Amino acid sequence: MFSATTSIKVRYQETDKMGIVYHANYFTWLEVARVNLLEQIECPYRKLEESGYFLPVLSCSCEFKMPARFDDLLSIEVSIPKVDQVRIQANYFVRKGEEILATAKTTHAFVNENGKVIRPPKVFKEQMKKFKNNMI
Amino acid sequence: MFSATTSIKVRYQETDKMGIVYHANYFTWLEVARVNLLEQIECPYRKLEESGYFLPVLSCSCEFKMPARFDDLLSIEVSIPKVDQVRIQANYFVRKGEEILATAKTTHAFVNENGKVIRPPKVFKEQMKKFKNNMI
Amino acid sequence: MFSATTSIKVRYQETDKMGIVYHANYFTWLEVARVNLLEQIECPYRKLEESGYFLPVLSCSCEFKMPARFDDLLSIEVSIPKVDQVRIQANYFVRKGEEILATAKTTHAFVNENGKVIRPPKVFKEQMKKFKNNMI
Amino acid sequence: MFSATTSIKVRYQETDKMGIVYHANYFTWLEVARVNLLEQIECPYRKLEESGYFLPVLSCSCEFKMPARFDDLLSIEVSIPKVDQVRIQANYFVRKGEEILATAKTTHAFVNENGKVIRPPKVFKEQMKKFKNNMI
Repeated sequence: MFSATTSIKVRYQETDKMGIVYHANYFTWLEVARVNLLEQIECPYRKLEESGYFLPVLSCSCEFKMPARFDDLLSIEVSIPKVDQVRIQANYFVRKGEEILATAKTTHAFVNENGKVIRPPKVFKEQMKKFKNNMI
Repeated sequence: MFSATTSIKVRYQETDKMGIVYHANYFTWLEVARVNLLEQIECPYRKLEESGYFLPVLSCSCEFKMPARFDDLLSIEVSIPKVDQVRIQANYFVRKGEEILATAKTTHAFVNENGKVIRPPKVFKEQMKKFKNNMI
Repeated sequence: MFSATTSIKVRYQETDKMGIVYHANYFTWLEVARVNLLEQIECPYRKLEESGYFLPVLSCSCEFKMPARFDDLLSIEVSIPKVDQVRIQANYFVRKGEEILATAKTTHAFVNENGKVIRPPKVFKEQMKKFKNNMI
Repeated sequence: MFSATTSIKVRYQETDKMGIVYHANYFTWLEVARVNLLEQIECPYRKLEESGYFLPVLSCSCEFKMPARFDDLLSIEVSIPKVDQVRIQANYFVRKGEEILATAKTTHAFVNENGKVIRPPKVFKEQMKKFKNNMI
């Protein structure tokens, strides 16, 4: 299983009048973590899109255990347990230090410019494989 | 089961470079729908907060079936199937015309200013009850 | 001078930990007001884009006089004092009831898909003219 | 004149259907740069707020020269030319490499919890002075 960890500093804009981070912003952080994971396996999302591969979110969920606050330094760990023919699942931990603030899941499929579901590009599968083997 | 429906016009800001609505924005719309439901049962969220009752999101999930696009007129239907001692669950349909674009769930608990979970305020339970009976 | 007024209900997401609306969100509201103005002169922005005309923001400014708060019902008045060969200026008042919360300005130019500045489309100039005359 | 520079990686969420960054997001980045400047002069904004000092935006403006795009690595340079009795002005350059994408200004005043304008806290003035002298 491949994973990558990304640091996030909570922005003032991301808080709400409850004094904590507005929940929807966690999904933006998950996306930053996904983009970073793809960067780390040398398969940048920017280049995937330039090649006509898009990776929209099919579903997402998040459980909020402890609030994040302005200026907190968080780490977002994302792992991709498996990639089947078309679906990609990603699991996340949002942590402040050792403490888990939230856990989350997203599922994705590669689509072309017309939104039609297509198989993952070769480069993605090869890089996933290469980096998984490196981790063992 | 009590439900309320809210209209949303998709803002340009809510789109992303894929040309469709960025997924995290659906959770903002769900919140608008919840606030509207509370307004309709004459228990406005603004007043709940003024009385020291806050209603953070404990968990949320969304399945995206069809993309929403700039300037689309959407309806967000929210229903609250049941309220137990502390947890409130809400279910949502995001529609464009008759077509369901997304389904979603959120769970909440009332907390006080210190973030401690407390029982729902009387006014909330009474208004929920009153409006449910009116629907039969 | 043509103007249009749009109602905005402040979303919880738009607040920050200061308990008031985060300033950057006003610019999203200004955009909603511009889109509404174009709708009212029967020249919807969605259709302009479909015809290859885009209207990015070249500059923007806002003065905040009084804070907006969660659940406030605001009106955004936008007027277009004049349209020269390429530049379009828009002026705004953000009001809560009679009270002015903010004043703002944005400037725009029509660009094509490649981002090159082009003259406003005929339909835009004609509709602007038609609706201005109707106002006299 | 004191200045600080902050790196920003453009998030997918920050783009819009024009394929570029939505203009309002620049103001969020300016805030991140301000917070970083205060951190660097050892006067963290988080602590100012804990001491009852808030620093809302009174006005802001931005000129957009070149678009920022997804995954761009930007630098935000903020400088504070002077602090008078109550008003603080900040000037910004948003750059991609050497290229200036945008210039901006914001003005602020310290307010207390009730939103009343107050003089800047001593610690802020002292730290500003200390770090300016260090730069000469």
